[in-house]
Amino acid sequence: MHILIIGAAGMIGRKLTHRLVQDGRIGEKQIEKLSLVDVIEAPVPEKFTGKIEIRAADIAQKDAAATIIASRPDLVFHLAAIVSGEAEANFDKGYSINLDGTRFLFEAIRHEGEKSPYKPRVIFTSSLAVFGAPLPDVIEDDFILTPLSSYGTQKAIGELLLADYSRKGFLDGIGLRLPTICIRPGKPNAAASGFYSNILREPLIGQEAVLPVSDDVRHWFASPRAAVSFLVHAASLDLEPLGWRRSLTMPGLSATVGEEIEALRRVAGEKAVRLIKRVPDPAIARIIESWPRAFAARRAEALGFVAETSMDTIIKTHIDDELGGAIV
Amino acid sequence: MHILIIGAAGMIGRKLTHRLVQDGRIGEKQIEKLSLVDVIEAPVPEKFTGKIEIRAADIAQKDAAATIIASRPDLVFHLAAIVSGEAEANFDKGYSINLDGTRFLFEAIRHEGEKSPYKPRVIFTSSLAVFGAPLPDVIEDDFILTPLSSYGTQKAIGELLLADYSRKGFLDGIGLRLPTICIRPGKPNAAASGFYSNILREPLIGQEAVLPVSDDVRHWFASPRAAVSFLVHAASLDLEPLGWRRSLTMPGLSATVGEEIEALRRVAGEKAVRLIKRVPDPAIARIIESWPRAFAARRAEALGFVAETSMDTIIKTHIDDELGGAIV
Repeated sequence: MHILIIGAAGMIGRKLTHRLVQDGRIGEKQIEKLSLVDVIEAPVPEKFTGKIEIRAADIAQKDAAATIIASRPDLVFHLAAIVSGEAEANFDKGYSINLDGTRFLFEAIRHEGEKSPYKPRVIFTSSLAVFGAPLPDVIEDDFILTPLSSYGTQKAIGELLLADYSRKGFLDGIGLRLPTICIRPGKPNAAASGFYSNILREPLIGQEAVLPVSDDVRHWFASPRAAVSFLVHAASLDLEPLGWRRSLTMPGLSATVGEEIEALRRVAGEKAVRLIKRVPDPAIARIIESWPRAFAARRAEALGFVAETSMDTIIKTHIDDELGGAIV
Repeated sequence: MHILIIGAAGMIGRKLTHRLVQDGRIGEKQIEKLSLVDVIEAPVPEKFTGKIEIRAADIAQKDAAATIIASRPDLVFHLAAIVSGEAEANFDKGYSINLDGTRFLFEAIRHEGEKSPYKPRVIFTSSLAVFGAPLPDVIEDDFILTPLSSYGTQKAIGELLLADYSRKGFLDGIGLRLPTICIRPGKPNAAASGFYSNILREPLIGQEAVLPVSDDVRHWFASPRAAVSFLVHAASLDLEPLGWRRSLTMPGLSATVGEEIEALRRVAGEKAVRLIKRVPDPAIARIIESWPRAFAARRAEALGFVAETSMDTIIKTHIDDELGGAIV
């Protein structure tokens, strides 16, 4: 089996590559070749015995996708995107990469299939940003997509294209709306959603973190490990039961900031909790007000997608995967 | 006021032009100029005292929209589209006109606004084809868009773009999902939905019509006159209450084929009903099975959009508008 990852140098792309190398197979099929594509060269995975191809390419360039698809991968993970803040600040760049890039990829697959039969499984990462206020407390699978950002708009369009190209038989697509990743590894960043991870990740390594909102703010989470497991699960799933509604809200944990803090207290003690500094930021509070709080991800659960069910587990997963299994 | 109609030579475009010329104004504002654009030259409207510009242009050509928008119309009706059947048969053509054409238009408006402030009202005709089975008996305003055709996909993408361009302040957009037009004037055509109009229009002029489905088939209708009234109403509406959910399901009449026939009997007698020939067509029955049956168009109704409330009225409207007010 030949697997292509577009966006392989990003956080999820690297973790997915690691997991695929570790497993060596998708279901019953051995992974013989990995093609890793990103705007920068993705790191060479260690210990992989199959063939590796690493390529720096910009999918917003009209002909890049045709070159990438010419080797006819059996399975395509399309993770590449300009993130929310940048897509909002740079309208042209967001549409160019998130919309045109996605369409060029699907078109390249369609045209490859015109030469001789070719219908790869395509796994597309979508986002909760396809939803926007006013939202019900719990969002059902048949709730309308109402993005309030250009990024969310581009992801919603990607979902529509994925469904149409699947329906027409050009590819076999599934879109996964990933929960907000928590705990996101790395350094604190300026993203409006950053604090959800910061207030756990930083105290776990003895660093202070800023909490800009109140304890009752509720949101939808899954660990990086769960996100990778969704992608891998989607790779070998029978998509027939989905019909043509090819994008799914992934399961997650609905938790408040207060519940995050209580879990931190249980896992890492009062000492860790004391490192959270409350600095209210009305601008951030206003942004996240329009975000989803909880989903009934019934379709995805019925198909066997599984997320964490407690914030304690999410924190322990981070300690295992990022901190070598123990906190100081 | 300068009004641009793109798709002015089509059935709705011609009726809209006629209505605008008749009214001479939108709300308090006099119509000083009409720009009529279509792939073929639209007919010159009679009795209009303002300025007229008629242009044959293909909006799928990248630079066509910039030329059209350079004269900075205050109000843009975007009605142009490749219809459902053709968009399904010709994938490239459908995406080229319905998606790229719409995006080129919105981009031309955005770029015109970069030269000096410009934010026209844009009225976009969407379609019930944005919905697809499985559907509830009555579809609410917050039901997910799940198109089962390339045409519906392209319209749903148009709605998303319209909302994002409105949110960013590039234009002031509203999308109207028109009900199935009944009675559609003209000759019987091969569209799967054709029979809904054929079984009324043809008997009213003493011609036979074929009914390919059973009497209990239910669908969502409005007259051409109501469709034009939606467009005109949208032109002077305060869009503030819409928030960024800029596309609305228009009100309509939910009626069965049996109810159509009963109304025909009341308006035109048994003689007309006898001209309906039942010739079951399983292919057509299968296609329309996935179509919507009824909507709760609450948002549109709250904003003052009004449709017919009986099939009798729909038939009488056709007699008034197309048959000179009387049947033979």
